Amino acid sequence: MRGRNVDTIWMNARLLTMMQGAGHGAVIADGMIACHQGRIVYAGPADAAPDLGSARFVDCGGRWITPGLIDCHTHLVHCGNRAHEFEARLAGASYEEIARAGGGIASTVAATRAASEVELEAQALVRLDALLAEGVTTVEIKSGYGLDLGTERKLLRTATALGVQRAVSVTRTFLGAHALPPEHADKDAYIDHLCDTMLPVLAQEGLVDAVDGFCDTIAFSPAQIERVFAAARRLGLPVKLHAEQLSNSHGAALAARQGALSADHLEYLDAAGIAAMAAAETVAVLLPGAFYFTRETQVPPIAALRRAGVPMAIATDCNPGTSPLTSLLLAMNMAATLFRLTVAECLAGVTREAARALGMLDRIGTLEPGKWCDLAIWDVERPAELVYAMSGNPLHARIWRGQDT
Amino acid sequence: MRGRNVDTIWMNARLLTMMQGAGHGAVIADGMIACHQGRIVYAGPADAAPDLGSARFVDCGGRWITPGLIDCHTHLVHCGNRAHEFEARLAGASYEEIARAGGGIASTVAATRAASEVELEAQALVRLDALLAEGVTTVEIKSGYGLDLGTERKLLRTATALGVQRAVSVTRTFLGAHALPPEHADKDAYIDHLCDTMLPVLAQEGLVDAVDGFCDTIAFSPAQIERVFAAARRLGLPVKLHAEQLSNSHGAALAARQGALSADHLEYLDAAGIAAMAAAETVAVLLPGAFYFTRETQVPPIAALRRAGVPMAIATDCNPGTSPLTSLLLAMNMAATLFRLTVAECLAGVTREAARALGMLDRIGTLEPGKWCDLAIWDVERPAELVYAMSGNPLHARIWRGQDT
Ligand SMILES: [Zn+2]
Ligand SMILES: [Zn+2]
Repeated sequence: MRGRNVDTIWMNARLLTMMQGAGHGAVIADGMIACHQGRIVYAGPADAAPDLGSARFVDCGGRWITPGLIDCHTHLVHCGNRAHEFEARLAGASYEEIARAGGGIASTVAATRAASEVELEAQALVRLDALLAEGVTTVEIKSGYGLDLGTERKLLRTATALGVQRAVSVTRTFLGAHALPPEHADKDAYIDHLCDTMLPVLAQEGLVDAVDGFCDTIAFSPAQIERVFAAARRLGLPVKLHAEQLSNSHGAALAARQGALSADHLEYLDAAGIAAMAAAETVAVLLPGAFYFTRETQVPPIAALRRAGVPMAIATDCNPGTSPLTSLLLAMNMAATLFRLTVAECLAGVTREAARALGMLDRIGTLEPGKWCDLAIWDVERPAELVYAMSGNPLHARIWRGQDT
Repeated sequence: MRGRNVDTIWMNARLLTMMQGAGHGAVIADGMIACHQGRIVYAGPADAAPDLGSARFVDCGGRWITPGLIDCHTHLVHCGNRAHEFEARLAGASYEEIARAGGGIASTVAATRAASEVELEAQALVRLDALLAEGVTTVEIKSGYGLDLGTERKLLRTATALGVQRAVSVTRTFLGAHALPPEHADKDAYIDHLCDTMLPVLAQEGLVDAVDGFCDTIAFSPAQIERVFAAARRLGLPVKLHAEQLSNSHGAALAARQGALSADHLEYLDAAGIAAMAAAETVAVLLPGAFYFTRETQVPPIAALRRAGVPMAIATDCNPGTSPLTSLLLAMNMAATLFRLTVAECLAGVTREAARALGMLDRIGTLEPGKWCDLAIWDVERPAELVYAMSGNPLHARIWRGQDT
């Protein structure tokens, strides 16, 4: 590394590198980060840095720097909210009454189909900006409120556009297997259409980075999910799965056997599922916002996942029905408070392990040379404050690919 | 009302007046609010307004206006946070180990005693600004981390200064009976000192608007609280009480018998306490942030409070030990999600009923002529969104005493 190859140097900072297995070495008391063309070229102790030559110097005033946060599971692009259902349920209406009145996921699908890309983008930007304000530099966005080719395309195009509108990395997941669309009576026929037409067309158009499904008695069976995964494999796309949220359908084990990047939710995960995930190094993506909002009482088997060495990530699950949440900081607090993750696990869950859940650990998630220079700089005395506070935003600055944003 | 006596008119707005007993009349579809010298002179339908003459007109673009939010129970002024204890507990440390290491409330008292007023104010302003950003126009601030005359004075002076630094109404509550200070061995002797010296001196200095205590086996007994209340009465000060948070000490009934403005927490409240509160019109201040953060499982008896007609308010309880929360919007969401308050109850709980809990309903809490023109203007389609969302901030503008802030 020669001095003239550095653009910017952040100095006088405390670093939480989040490097795997670094133990206390993950903390660097007097740290320095150097960036060249958007990538980290040095992250380490100031006194061990090579000659970095002339560059723009940023004095961080002793603040903490973590990797930019990664929200690895969102349904950020959708139209409308479901506040009226929330209000009705608190006033005593049953799920059935709400469904009869056109509520539930059907109402979001109808509103999303009716919305223009301009409307969808405007509504999604409000949510995206809330995430970015807290230091998020990468966000995963799922389709799944369209459930027909045209609307799924519209959702994935909007997700793509968000990454152009804002300084953030967007990764797009096709979730056509989210629910049975109202115009289909037969789940298998819909899955045929999804595998034979929707997914290949959208993948061909370059709109799909990964493929997801919802495996549950109210959604799709393991056999149907296997067909979706096979279609993804034919297209060379990685897969992930909503599994064991409401009951144990053995979806996590299926996902692990298929080499899925992650299985998400996992409240009803059993020992066989944990073993399969550990063997496959499938990431457990925990979604405590949905657990809280739906008043679930079954906690995911955190201690067993920890013992088995399954990597654990944390995400907002931002969606209008079960997790109207746009704060990854609050998601961390809920993971600690409700699921008893440690502070270190929470911080890894929104950085290194979230990167792993997206198959992007080679590019983001830790402060290491060669990775994108995505940083969050915090006004805190210790990183634990990021997990402890239930609200407030101590972000001082957010750097995406070396640029202050 | 003559036209020349109006400064500002907010028009093209939907009003949620929060007027008692107004039923659906609390909603005004095409509303207008007129202000003169900081007070509301008209709030109602635009087409029923008298001739308001010339004034500054503000077009609200159809947005919703509610009364400015009121956080009626906070410990906003304190030094430091307890993130390190939070981290240690998640890593497996017991309460005893943390207490032996100087943790718990003792650590906050020690840090607060050591802090200057400048430091205290700077730290409190960060928290206050977070509340104001969400539309809070009145905040109650308790002392209680000093526990000696000089430090309690410092806390109340800082609370007073916050109301000068920011466009917000601050009401100050003396909570000397929060915990036994470390230099005292005898609770009764400390209460004597509090009643004979601390409270009279601070009240004489004009620093005390109300008096509070913590009634619990780990804090003070009902007999000790009665003596605090008697001292308050001699000084003409209203009282309120932390009651039934951890166990049933029958504090709420005591508070109600003494004409307290409110009894707060109330997880372990019994039928006799509810009856006493209903008879005395004592407000139940619910603090779901503390319930959540301490992982309490005993829910306050909401249905019974509702049946008995006890007014219910909601507050953040912002404090470093059990509720590091500076979002009244999240407190509402938690009151709905965890305690099953309706949307209407949540909105009343941070406006009208919070005003009642502070004895200020004659001045704030509803949109009515004669009250301060404290407004929150919201970018939402329906007020239920303020309760439904777990994060995000749809505040468009905040008006304190007629001034855009
Ligand atoms: Zn999801
Ligand atoms: Zn309190």
